[in-house]
Amino acid sequence: MRSLIIFPLLATLTHGVSAQGSDLDLLRHVDPMIGTQRMGHVYPGATAPFGMVQLSPDTDTIPYAVDGKYNPAVYSTCSGYQYDDSTIVGFSHTHFSGTGHSDLGDILLMPTTGPLQMNPGTAAAPQSGFRSVFHHKNEKAVPGKYEVLLEDHGIKAELTATTRVGMHRYTFPRKETGRVILDLVHGIYNHADKNVWTFVRVENDTLVTGYRQTNGWGRTRTVYFAIAFDKLITDYGQQPDQRTTEYRGFWRKFDQTKDFPEMAGKQLRAWFNFDITVGEELLVKVALSSVSTEGALKNMQTEVPHWDFDRVVGETRDTWRKELSRIHIESKRPEVLTNFYTAMYHACLSPTVYMDVDGRYRGLDQNIHTAEGFTNYTTFSLWDTYRALHPLFNIIQRERSSDFINSMLAHYDQSAQHMLPIWSHHANENWCMIGYHAVSVIADAHVKGIRGFDAKHALDACAATARHRSFEGLGDYIDLGYVPEDRSGASVSKTLEYAYDDRCIQKMAFRLGNKALELEFAMRCGLSDRLFDHSTGFMRPRLADGSFLKEFDPLDTHQKGFIEGNAWNYGLYVPHEPGELVRLMGGPERFGVHLDSLFTMELPDKYFEHTEDITRDGIMGNYVHGNEPSHHVPYLYNYSDRPWMTGKRVRDVLDIMYKPKPDGLSGNDDCGQMSAWYIFSALGFYPMEPGSERYELGAPVVERARIPLANGTTFTVVAERQGPRNVYVQQVSLNGQRLDRTYITHAELMAGGTLTFRMGARPPEH
Amino acid sequence: MRSLIIFPLLATLTHGVSAQGSDLDLLRHVDPMIGTQRMGHVYPGATAPFGMVQLSPDTDTIPYAVDGKYNPAVYSTCSGYQYDDSTIVGFSHTHFSGTGHSDLGDILLMPTTGPLQMNPGTAAAPQSGFRSVFHHKNEKAVPGKYEVLLEDHGIKAELTATTRVGMHRYTFPRKETGRVILDLVHGIYNHADKNVWTFVRVENDTLVTGYRQTNGWGRTRTVYFAIAFDKLITDYGQQPDQRTTEYRGFWRKFDQTKDFPEMAGKQLRAWFNFDITVGEELLVKVALSSVSTEGALKNMQTEVPHWDFDRVVGETRDTWRKELSRIHIESKRPEVLTNFYTAMYHACLSPTVYMDVDGRYRGLDQNIHTAEGFTNYTTFSLWDTYRALHPLFNIIQRERSSDFINSMLAHYDQSAQHMLPIWSHHANENWCMIGYHAVSVIADAHVKGIRGFDAKHALDACAATARHRSFEGLGDYIDLGYVPEDRSGASVSKTLEYAYDDRCIQKMAFRLGNKALELEFAMRCGLSDRLFDHSTGFMRPRLADGSFLKEFDPLDTHQKGFIEGNAWNYGLYVPHEPGELVRLMGGPERFGVHLDSLFTMELPDKYFEHTEDITRDGIMGNYVHGNEPSHHVPYLYNYSDRPWMTGKRVRDVLDIMYKPKPDGLSGNDDCGQMSAWYIFSALGFYPMEPGSERYELGAPVVERARIPLANGTTFTVVAERQGPRNVYVQQVSLNGQRLDRTYITHAELMAGGTLTFRMGARPPEH
Repeated sequence: MRSLIIFPLLATLTHGVSAQGSDLDLLRHVDPMIGTQRMGHVYPGATAPFGMVQLSPDTDTIPYAVDGKYNPAVYSTCSGYQYDDSTIVGFSHTHFSGTGHSDLGDILLMPTTGPLQMNPGTAAAPQSGFRSVFHHKNEKAVPGKYEVLLEDHGIKAELTATTRVGMHRYTFPRKETGRVILDLVHGIYNHADKNVWTFVRVENDTLVTGYRQTNGWGRTRTVYFAIAFDKLITDYGQQPDQRTTEYRGFWRKFDQTKDFPEMAGKQLRAWFNFDITVGEELLVKVALSSVSTEGALKNMQTEVPHWDFDRVVGETRDTWRKELSRIHIESKRPEVLTNFYTAMYHACLSPTVYMDVDGRYRGLDQNIHTAEGFTNYTTFSLWDTYRALHPLFNIIQRERSSDFINSMLAHYDQSAQHMLPIWSHHANENWCMIGYHAVSVIADAHVKGIRGFDAKHALDACAATARHRSFEGLGDYIDLGYVPEDRSGASVSKTLEYAYDDRCIQKMAFRLGNKALELEFAMRCGLSDRLFDHSTGFMRPRLADGSFLKEFDPLDTHQKGFIEGNAWNYGLYVPHEPGELVRLMGGPERFGVHLDSLFTMELPDKYFEHTEDITRDGIMGNYVHGNEPSHHVPYLYNYSDRPWMTGKRVRDVLDIMYKPKPDGLSGNDDCGQMSAWYIFSALGFYPMEPGSERYELGAPVVERARIPLANGTTFTVVAERQGPRNVYVQQVSLNGQRLDRTYITHAELMAGGTLTFRMGARPPEH
Repeated sequence: MRSLIIFPLLATLTHGVSAQGSDLDLLRHVDPMIGTQRMGHVYPGATAPFGMVQLSPDTDTIPYAVDGKYNPAVYSTCSGYQYDDSTIVGFSHTHFSGTGHSDLGDILLMPTTGPLQMNPGTAAAPQSGFRSVFHHKNEKAVPGKYEVLLEDHGIKAELTATTRVGMHRYTFPRKETGRVILDLVHGIYNHADKNVWTFVRVENDTLVTGYRQTNGWGRTRTVYFAIAFDKLITDYGQQPDQRTTEYRGFWRKFDQTKDFPEMAGKQLRAWFNFDITVGEELLVKVALSSVSTEGALKNMQTEVPHWDFDRVVGETRDTWRKELSRIHIESKRPEVLTNFYTAMYHACLSPTVYMDVDGRYRGLDQNIHTAEGFTNYTTFSLWDTYRALHPLFNIIQRERSSDFINSMLAHYDQSAQHMLPIWSHHANENWCMIGYHAVSVIADAHVKGIRGFDAKHALDACAATARHRSFEGLGDYIDLGYVPEDRSGASVSKTLEYAYDDRCIQKMAFRLGNKALELEFAMRCGLSDRLFDHSTGFMRPRLADGSFLKEFDPLDTHQKGFIEGNAWNYGLYVPHEPGELVRLMGGPERFGVHLDSLFTMELPDKYFEHTEDITRDGIMGNYVHGNEPSHHVPYLYNYSDRPWMTGKRVRDVLDIMYKPKPDGLSGNDDCGQMSAWYIFSALGFYPMEPGSERYELGAPVVERARIPLANGTTFTVVAERQGPRNVYVQQVSLNGQRLDRTYITHAELMAGGTLTFRMGARPPEH
């Protein structure tokens, strides 16, 4: 073997020295373990902000299907990691943060010692495979770095990452052969035929390249990689007896199980041996690409042209400091600081960069495109993130907002359906969940002055998407004014969300002076009352013949007509016409009573026993914070006769449903939406209707907050008389002027200034 | 649906008008049906010279494996077409010409009428599927065009092709829906899991793109395509009930079986409907690419920017005229003209262009490369073609010879094994057959003055390949001087071929002044006697301990130690040291007697009953012309005491083993090697030792031949007193000077001039 490629050891001198250990270091408030237990579904591993590589331990290998049927147990490891698991299978390089369905877990490495074991083994008998037992006391996760002791092998594993490169440092305990397993069979939500093809080339004695192609949640997905070791591979091989890894044809020219540098097949695992002395470190760099192994190698050579692990840690932690410092808060309660900055951390994990350093990326059409003038991103969990995460970006990540929209427009341009993304990742549309909320993301960015995209093209894309008649009942919705349940399920949820999305289009069309589009979508967005059943006082599924569906239990989360929410919660989804909703429900007073009932009723467990996404802690009465459809609901009190109850409810949710511990997230973080809710609400305001200028006022949990804005101004929040029991807002003033309304506008925010809440332990007097 | 892409109708005015119908048209001597029956394994469809697209009918769908075992029946349709078959399944776009193992058959289209049938059905019951009965009387194949009546559907199908684009013209019989099936399941040598992934996008109402990725003989192979119709698709869909073609995930957003434009899966078949009036034509263009669908579309737009089917036919036939006119022959025997120009046609089918119009192609590392300064080719059946086909190219296709070598060097540069190709196609090494004969191809080009490649780099590549110790007994060969049969099978065949290849390297090293390499390989190439068993008079397999293998039957074609030839034939494989061979075998007289025995012995059928590659006609006594190891053997008479017997044997082979009829090839054409043997031998000389300057003289079958050479000279062959029975050469003169030797040199050929044979019905007097 020859070492053909030499990595230049030139330092990139433009990088600063890390300021680790500063007392003002916001990083100390971040605990990546929060949300790793039960339903949070976040991963604790190492990543750069919005990084393409998410290098994290995978704790189990639960199959997606057992006996051909969906295995509910797989749900617990959506992020690859579940706090309660006792073993680590290895470290893979792609992970979703907080999702409720999954994929990825690509390119797993596992350092081992002892006899060669080529199967992961089981959690019940870890000795049966290459996995290892671990304990949380020997584990540490901080932004940009993860480390753990792999007890079965005695190996300390440390992980860090740049945007496109994961770096591993393995410290071996003894003088013996050190081994690294490269497992391309491993994946998250793996099913028997998920692997479509895998390919490995041992390019020389320090470099391995290849790819993993899967058919999972992403239907046609390929991850290319380049792996460089800082020591010479002494020998290597692939798992024997894998028939499909062998060349077909008449002749077996080589022993393909050992030192055969061109491996391929559907179920490929390889091993690499290294001579290791006592306590010696093995460094490994793993770069990814959606384009090619050549692209991965270029990413590696550009981002980490050296072998200084600690330098990567330092530089990545610096980028985290920058992201966290976009909002400064003050609080006497340590848990508030931890919850807040951990939420800030989780809010900077998705969407993820999806292009090589040269701007090339794989598009939805599987062709290679170049992002001209923007950074291409993927992982758009839009049904979740349009609510608060993208609005948050439109305040503190305005440049990235343009990138996100340009990425979605590229998706649209490449779509044979001519649709914006619904839920898209890694050059795939996975069509998960309902609505077409890319429309909301675009409209919200536009109304908030984000201008780094072609607004007219974006408006066209929104309209084309919303007009796709064969998409989930849209044709009927256009014709009848609602989705009929007998033609397309979850019809109430769909109708309500379509109507909201259509209002976004209407408003954007208005701002762009497109009168025809404005009129077209104005006709579509005022349709909420079509589903309101005055006899029960709830939104209720209607059939194509106009009648309501007979079977109807507004408490049942599996009620036909709804998805991931019952009629009590979902029926309140009219964020763009709260006044109309209040009118339908009998006026402000009755509406307030309805909300009180929602938050306080006592429900038997049976109503939640089949609910996947949330813990019991994520439920308050019948209000479900652990899933998204209700996220705006506490703010609806602003439209009742008792707006101060917004503050009360918000503060309860902030305190009860977010905790600084591994199971501290009451539901899936959903790519940052749960965290973005916390961030806004902790600051005292919330974008109840993305696409509009308004933020509803709630009740801050911070004492003080400062948001330095891109235009040079600073917006400050002050909470006077703040305290754990002072959850009722007495009065609000903006720049010293008392506000007689329950919202502020985006223009007011961007102008800078101070928003002052005076808090109290009781509702204000009138 | 919208038609987003408009194909310009601008004529490319630089193309000339075709000269169809000329009396001097060499095309009329070509019959593509020759060799389509039994063992020839050529395809009758439409292709441009060395074209990337080979658009041809596939007549059956025999699976590669039955009950998991290799199915010998599949062998008959290596080229997709077997003359004796009665049905056509459709027209696919990639085919090997004349191979003895197979792959390809990608992107099958079948026009149909009547009820929708999505399975091909069986040959026994063609009505059970979309296939159709056909008869040869309704079929016509000429260079650049194929047509057939699909009787079950009443559709006349006509096919033509440019280098990268296949064009179809379907004439429908009735006013009804015309349909085109796109079958991505279909392939040649298909096995149950050959399809790795397939992908189809309906881009708009006239354009479909996609790819087919397979794991067949080519282990990791992808063919991208773009299909354009000249009529609007009225509706379309995919075969239902193919579970893997559906999106995974919670929601089925669409009816994916109909008008769903983004299809993917492992077993994908789609249908497209068109409104057709009586007798109306549907035109289809199908472009291929190894890079991407974008590349395929660009190939289409560049090569066929119009919809003029007849123009494509005319232009492609012009390119064929040019290739055929590289040698002009005269003969009073029509069958000689037909055999000769059909051989010329078959000799211009492989290697095949393997890059897009912009020079990009998929490399062995699966990355996209750009061919800088050369045209990249694939399909290197080197164990066959190094013998006479590449030497032929070194006379009449000298520019392409450089391209072929640059393509092989690119393969070497991309190879993790650091080896030149053995048998490579479509960005794959399939490792078929033995030896490393790229070395011979390079050395032959170099000795014959081809200079369009980096000779030093090529020599390094040859040496690196020949030193790959873990390749098929090479380590033992280097250490022991022979391949021991107990360590690597076919040891005699390998040893003899390695020794010949090593002589090629030695000579090239000598010419390039690399003394170290010259010495290294001089030590390796004189090893033939190591395997000569004086007790039997044959080459015989030896074991690692030095002893001969006990079980030995020199007549048995399945004798251990040999591959595709018995000891009688293969033992004569010392083309680079015929004098040494003659000495080992007891001198010129005994050697001649041995050859006589070879050609005249009567053998029971049992010795041939398991021989796949050849028909019984391909055997003359025990001489096997239907396979390659003996192709030089008739010329060995030149080293016996009766050199005129060369002419006798060659003329017998020319007349008996090549016939102008469908079963006229006595064995696999093997990418043109069988045909190249005919061409050389018909002209009266043959490159017995490629890599040397010499051509052995035989006996021409033509009356006169003229080879216009690239350097402006013309080499002429004249056969005086030519006649069917005048098979003995009486004397030979070069430019009027009588030759007292049995060879001419390449320098003599390239200098131009006239080689005159005087023929007679009896051996010459001495």
